[in-house]
Amino acid sequence: MKNNFELDKPHDECGIYAVYSNHNSELARTLYFGLYALQHRGQDSCGIAVTNGLNISYYKNLGLVSEVFSEEAISALPEGDIAIGHVRYASSGLKNSINAQPVVYNGRLGMFAIAMNGKITNAEVLRKRLIEEGMTFQTNIDCEVIANLINKHTDNGKCDVERAMRELEGSFAIALMTSTELYAIRDRYGLRPLVLGRTEDGYYLSSESCGLDATGVELIRDINPGEVAVISAKGVSSSYFAKATRRPCIFEYVYTARADSFIDNKSVYEARYECGRTLARKLMLKADIVAGVPDSANVSARGYAVESGIPYIDVLEKNRYVGRTFIQPNQFMRENSVKIKLNPHLHNIKDKEIILIDDSIVRGTTSKKILETLKKAGAKAVHMVIASPIVKHPCYTGIDIETYDQLIGATRNAEEIGKLIGADSLHFMDVRDLIKCCSSGDYKTFCAGCFDGDYPDDIEKKLKDRREI
Amino acid sequence: MKNNFELDKPHDECGIYAVYSNHNSELARTLYFGLYALQHRGQDSCGIAVTNGLNISYYKNLGLVSEVFSEEAISALPEGDIAIGHVRYASSGLKNSINAQPVVYNGRLGMFAIAMNGKITNAEVLRKRLIEEGMTFQTNIDCEVIANLINKHTDNGKCDVERAMRELEGSFAIALMTSTELYAIRDRYGLRPLVLGRTEDGYYLSSESCGLDATGVELIRDINPGEVAVISAKGVSSSYFAKATRRPCIFEYVYTARADSFIDNKSVYEARYECGRTLARKLMLKADIVAGVPDSANVSARGYAVESGIPYIDVLEKNRYVGRTFIQPNQFMRENSVKIKLNPHLHNIKDKEIILIDDSIVRGTTSKKILETLKKAGAKAVHMVIASPIVKHPCYTGIDIETYDQLIGATRNAEEIGKLIGADSLHFMDVRDLIKCCSSGDYKTFCAGCFDGDYPDDIEKKLKDRREI
Amino acid sequence: MKNNFELDKPHDECGIYAVYSNHNSELARTLYFGLYALQHRGQDSCGIAVTNGLNISYYKNLGLVSEVFSEEAISALPEGDIAIGHVRYASSGLKNSINAQPVVYNGRLGMFAIAMNGKITNAEVLRKRLIEEGMTFQTNIDCEVIANLINKHTDNGKCDVERAMRELEGSFAIALMTSTELYAIRDRYGLRPLVLGRTEDGYYLSSESCGLDATGVELIRDINPGEVAVISAKGVSSSYFAKATRRPCIFEYVYTARADSFIDNKSVYEARYECGRTLARKLMLKADIVAGVPDSANVSARGYAVESGIPYIDVLEKNRYVGRTFIQPNQFMRENSVKIKLNPHLHNIKDKEIILIDDSIVRGTTSKKILETLKKAGAKAVHMVIASPIVKHPCYTGIDIETYDQLIGATRNAEEIGKLIGADSLHFMDVRDLIKCCSSGDYKTFCAGCFDGDYPDDIEKKLKDRREI
Amino acid sequence: MKNNFELDKPHDECGIYAVYSNHNSELARTLYFGLYALQHRGQDSCGIAVTNGLNISYYKNLGLVSEVFSEEAISALPEGDIAIGHVRYASSGLKNSINAQPVVYNGRLGMFAIAMNGKITNAEVLRKRLIEEGMTFQTNIDCEVIANLINKHTDNGKCDVERAMRELEGSFAIALMTSTELYAIRDRYGLRPLVLGRTEDGYYLSSESCGLDATGVELIRDINPGEVAVISAKGVSSSYFAKATRRPCIFEYVYTARADSFIDNKSVYEARYECGRTLARKLMLKADIVAGVPDSANVSARGYAVESGIPYIDVLEKNRYVGRTFIQPNQFMRENSVKIKLNPHLHNIKDKEIILIDDSIVRGTTSKKILETLKKAGAKAVHMVIASPIVKHPCYTGIDIETYDQLIGATRNAEEIGKLIGADSLHFMDVRDLIKCCSSGDYKTFCAGCFDGDYPDDIEKKLKDRREI
Repeated sequence: MKNNFELDKPHDECGIYAVYSNHNSELARTLYFGLYALQHRGQDSCGIAVTNGLNISYYKNLGLVSEVFSEEAISALPEGDIAIGHVRYASSGLKNSINAQPVVYNGRLGMFAIAMNGKITNAEVLRKRLIEEGMTFQTNIDCEVIANLINKHTDNGKCDVERAMRELEGSFAIALMTSTELYAIRDRYGLRPLVLGRTEDGYYLSSESCGLDATGVELIRDINPGEVAVISAKGVSSSYFAKATRRPCIFEYVYTARADSFIDNKSVYEARYECGRTLARKLMLKADIVAGVPDSANVSARGYAVESGIPYIDVLEKNRYVGRTFIQPNQFMRENSVKIKLNPHLHNIKDKEIILIDDSIVRGTTSKKILETLKKAGAKAVHMVIASPIVKHPCYTGIDIETYDQLIGATRNAEEIGKLIGADSLHFMDVRDLIKCCSSGDYKTFCAGCFDGDYPDDIEKKLKDRREI
Repeated sequence: MKNNFELDKPHDECGIYAVYSNHNSELARTLYFGLYALQHRGQDSCGIAVTNGLNISYYKNLGLVSEVFSEEAISALPEGDIAIGHVRYASSGLKNSINAQPVVYNGRLGMFAIAMNGKITNAEVLRKRLIEEGMTFQTNIDCEVIANLINKHTDNGKCDVERAMRELEGSFAIALMTSTELYAIRDRYGLRPLVLGRTEDGYYLSSESCGLDATGVELIRDINPGEVAVISAKGVSSSYFAKATRRPCIFEYVYTARADSFIDNKSVYEARYECGRTLARKLMLKADIVAGVPDSANVSARGYAVESGIPYIDVLEKNRYVGRTFIQPNQFMRENSVKIKLNPHLHNIKDKEIILIDDSIVRGTTSKKILETLKKAGAKAVHMVIASPIVKHPCYTGIDIETYDQLIGATRNAEEIGKLIGADSLHFMDVRDLIKCCSSGDYKTFCAGCFDGDYPDDIEKKLKDRREI
Repeated sequence: MKNNFELDKPHDECGIYAVYSNHNSELARTLYFGLYALQHRGQDSCGIAVTNGLNISYYKNLGLVSEVFSEEAISALPEGDIAIGHVRYASSGLKNSINAQPVVYNGRLGMFAIAMNGKITNAEVLRKRLIEEGMTFQTNIDCEVIANLINKHTDNGKCDVERAMRELEGSFAIALMTSTELYAIRDRYGLRPLVLGRTEDGYYLSSESCGLDATGVELIRDINPGEVAVISAKGVSSSYFAKATRRPCIFEYVYTARADSFIDNKSVYEARYECGRTLARKLMLKADIVAGVPDSANVSARGYAVESGIPYIDVLEKNRYVGRTFIQPNQFMRENSVKIKLNPHLHNIKDKEIILIDDSIVRGTTSKKILETLKKAGAKAVHMVIASPIVKHPCYTGIDIETYDQLIGATRNAEEIGKLIGADSLHFMDVRDLIKCCSSGDYKTFCAGCFDGDYPDDIEKKLKDRREI
Repeated sequence: MKNNFELDKPHDECGIYAVYSNHNSELARTLYFGLYALQHRGQDSCGIAVTNGLNISYYKNLGLVSEVFSEEAISALPEGDIAIGHVRYASSGLKNSINAQPVVYNGRLGMFAIAMNGKITNAEVLRKRLIEEGMTFQTNIDCEVIANLINKHTDNGKCDVERAMRELEGSFAIALMTSTELYAIRDRYGLRPLVLGRTEDGYYLSSESCGLDATGVELIRDINPGEVAVISAKGVSSSYFAKATRRPCIFEYVYTARADSFIDNKSVYEARYECGRTLARKLMLKADIVAGVPDSANVSARGYAVESGIPYIDVLEKNRYVGRTFIQPNQFMRENSVKIKLNPHLHNIKDKEIILIDDSIVRGTTSKKILETLKKAGAKAVHMVIASPIVKHPCYTGIDIETYDQLIGATRNAEEIGKLIGADSLHFMDVRDLIKCCSSGDYKTFCAGCFDGDYPDDIEKKLKDRREI
């Protein structure tokens, strides 16, 4: 059912949007627009849960925000004070809407609902232990492990959220709603983003600041690594469940986030633009034109063009109407599948020496097709410049780059990859340069594990140990 | 979203179909046809879960069997040895597919799935207690309470199913599937039906025998009240979790079940036919014609006609294409809503004295409209004969007759009801006569609580006590 | 895409409903309910066209009335004075909604719209001639031939409808709407039905009187064979385009029409009931029980039971939820496809000698499966009684019995057919008896061409001649 | 049903793709991909018609190519030698799929099908005359007028296509298919584009060259103004129905066409890029950054940036997931509707003097909202530069700029418009400069009627005269 022509890009797994408000009579409607702006973080399912102080009502299903929520569905959700919403990317399988989030629970805390972004690396260990302790599970999603931990550490209607969070390894940004409070939680490294916003009416959470912008909410700050922020009638109060070391996922800047977002106080646009400029300064390549692979590499390409003085001329035109399901390709399409999405600008390519910017290379399959296409269109030479380092390691914390053998760069250097994909030359960014471009003020540390193998908390070793047991 | 023109009939809440087979390469397909034959027991959602001995895969959604399961969805379910399926009637609310059954759990028993028909009268008490013990719930459906009890009474991978069942009050017929076994369970009174069938290939469960017929399965016997039948590679073994007193719901014979089914060894058709004959003998009414309200009263009406010698001539024609959603009615339709579904046979009605048989009267609203229609069509007199007693009490065990004030007969006798609905005379069946008509061999006891207030296990008093605490 | 399990019944091709009203602010809504009641005449597409005196607006699509017309679609149709609607049965092919009716034209008559039921036997000849004269066609439907004839015979905004109609051979009932007038036309033999009704507000047309009943309209009379009735602000005026010989299609009484309809002043119910009684008197069969194949033979079976004194006991239960699309059958279903729709009442069948009434036999395939099912269920003997004669000839005027080789009875007598389908005995009705049962007052002549080969206007010979040229 | 947030852009009305092939076993599939690449020319309906040399089969419906054509629908179309396809933009009304193209006719020419792009300015006159001559119409689309003219001028199976074309005024690019031939026709001014391509297997037509690219077809040449090209087993032969004056619509270069297309031998990309450069040279504006309104002004903005030396930094981020239907906006959205589609890059805007490039201004409503947004985001000044002249006149030949009063520029100069929309300064392109940028070799004449009021063939005057009569 997947579009055969989907480009070879890593996918994040979720977007979160949540509200605590005292006077918002259009809570579900506001969430709709917030989730809409976060749609790029997940297109498989979405949902909204609202509490009126007594019960939690929700609606969720498979599909885009604009498909799942009709006027009727939005209107059927009750008025209320607190709401959380979610968009989800699902990797595989017979899709059941039960895996959609938010997930709503009834337990010692009364009714509560959870929406999360991230990946709990010890989820299986925890699930096994919780099952031994007598809990049941209805899905495989990490959310359910978290909910059961929340429940386990609740006593007399009070939850020791910090203690529950301390049991979790991996990455997570969580919006947790009871009938009276909204919690915002981020893992101790701040691997997944979560920002806090405010209007006169209340407080808002969003995976990226673009969700706040779309709903007229002012960005205040990022939820901090290791923070448990509780939003209630009394305002926002914070505590920390762990000593925090800020190491947010650098891939958000490279590809995942929308360019107009701010994450950890850094403009994603600026980070990408600086990557382009840095590469131009370092590489000093000569060529007739610079171009980006649309749309994700456009910003870096602009930076590269400005810094190098080489004019930016597009070489690939994107078809904006590519849907998600598809008919079988004919002969030509089997051999030129990339053209359905990206058509070469023949006139701009012919006899040109081209610097082609892309944000990253994962499997390399699409890069190869793009380069073939440009060569067929008459390019004299294509120098491919990647605005990030070689992806040499899997991601264990939420991006679906899951095993070493999926990675063209796992065991190859730039020259070898360049040969494989057919580039006249291939250049990657140094990881230190990337980090510099993404840094902001005091925030200079990241998880760049997929590039340098240096995972926070020694995740890779832990996972390996577990498998060996 | 409900059809405004739905007739005033009580609704059962579920149908179950399940298979244990060693060689059925088309398990999901077989369940499809089985559930199809049970569609009259629930039209709101349906689902199928299949195990291949390791995992349980499932697909469920809102809609009719023929809407939810496309060829693609059936094919996507894996081959396997055990499968359970469910059709559901949902009473209200923003419909979320999460309430569809079967519900699949992961717990101490490994993966297991449950489909149930019935109503647990102490579900709230149990849920509260289980929450106190640390369990979480994701829905309000009774199924989840049962799953958590099953889990609670599991130790070392062995479940003391009998003990779990003993905690349940109310009515239930359950199909429970682990990765290696299929359980068939019926409450201690046998309130909800469940039959066992067999082919060369394996064992089958169905709420009614018509589900077995539709799939070529031979009916062996009913699951007994209080029985826990375990179907595994070793065949069927049985135990009892409680001293059983057979008191199946008599309303299955009156209205719920399909006429071609056998329940507790008694043909539903025969029961209804005998009701008609008994009424004819007792009432000795004079009239020109006998007619039934289609389709549910057709069989009793046939019995009445044969016994009375009065010819059966239809007075109402049913529109077979009445869908489930609807546009706003125009003026005429607002006043004549019943006509969209039931059109009077003018020619057969004019100047006739009519005996009109219906299966039951709950709210009386539809009966009133039907009688108006017949009178307008020129009927000289309409004697309404109900093939069951006055519904004087709510049902607490699965039929959605939920409160006294919904019942036209709660505080009225036949004469008073007759006046209200506009019948020239109105006659009900004596409860002893109904019981006699539904009896079979040694099976002569029923729950006729909605008629006589005599509920098994003193349900009504227990519920009242709980509310008062 | 067709349901594999559809029973072997002939299909009519259309239903018409139309209104001329001065004050009906809910014209489209009224048509909705009228068409709803005629849904049995065609389930493939439907449409409504409304004029406000200037333009004609319309909406039509593939699907049932309740599927095609949402509240939104009905509301989008304008208010107006005249409207015509249509339901259609389509025999085959890649279904394009363009074939749906009404068809709206702009021509010498200004805007006009046509909805028809029937079959023009010289359509191809006319189409060829009209093409030679310079007209174009966009579909294969007869409607378009009629529209072009209407147009051809229009001069100075006045149409000589009678002259146009005289060119048509075959069967037709037509509702034709201009911006100011509504025409009701019926072929010279009255082969297809069309009735006229009235309320205080205006005049109504319907293929069957059940459409009038459903919308609170009083039946006045049938449109006469050969009549062109013009309904305008001045009331109804009539003329005749041909010398009429009333020979309505007798199959409407046998199977097509709804039992609660009156056609040509005769109750369909009464006709069927009399068929049953007549057969009982003539055949004098002995048996334990009488049963009808549901639902179409129910009425005749009632008549047979009453007259014979043999009790009516059902032997087949119909599944009311059989949808139109379907998954591939499993092994059992391949061999027992009829069971998905009709389940045997084992208890009523075992060791019984049964008289089974059906309305007609066309191909005989379903009859064979039903008889196999009854025999497997233990019937001692099944005497099949058909409430119509042997179908020995194709229909050229609207029922889809199209060629001799589709007919089991084309070259066989009752005994031979009985053997083929596995009946212990098989009995048909004499054509004169059928005609007698369907007669009413002066109306005693029919087209029973499919039974006796005696077609009005020598249709068969004409068609043969044409083919030979 | 329209998206409230759709930006204020003119819309073309169609895209055409057609094939004549001897060996293409996947004709419908090829058309699918060709139409897919032309989807930007019309999103309301689409269709494909295929002939196998005898009949023409077709499928068309409302929706995007990827919505209308499932694998099933494509497979159901027969194999054949000739096929034509169409995508359509529909301006208003209760959408009936009957208006979708291609339209298939049966007439003197046998079966034939037509797909067109453009607008026949004398359609009403022709329709009236054809009606007087006895023809009927089923829609209001121009296509039907053309079909009837084609038919009228056919004698003995031979059509005098040239003569039929001579009767048409206005703009048109037509693909006309009989069972053996494919015609490509372009109006005498070449107002609407149509290109011819070739593979080893046959000949192809496409509204833009990007349709050929997407299907692996080599572009040969444009169909010439006034040309009737006939593609048959004998190859391509051409004739001219009128003395041609090449004046293609310049708006294709400004906005309508995809940037990677070649039209009339000129790269659309190059034309837009040159517009940007020309504006930079002429205006000599000073600012911190240059930005384009995404996506349509991106190319001109690149040209402007390169020529001016001012860095290109994005100020608006486009949400790629904006669907077509929508829920009611909340308060914030009512006031900030443009943000759902275009979010400001706060960081890039604050305290910046910005040159904002857009392709054109029609109503000005969206420009006003964008400028408000940028000002709120802290822009020091926004100089708006439009890569085309002021739209001062309606378009009568296919772009939906229909009346003077819809145009903000009809009676205002740049300064006045700038004030109205809130720009610090507003600059348009000189029409001669635009023409120069779009010129190519000998092709230096255009229709720029919407800018300069100079329409080919005196269209405006003729229309006015007609209205006055």
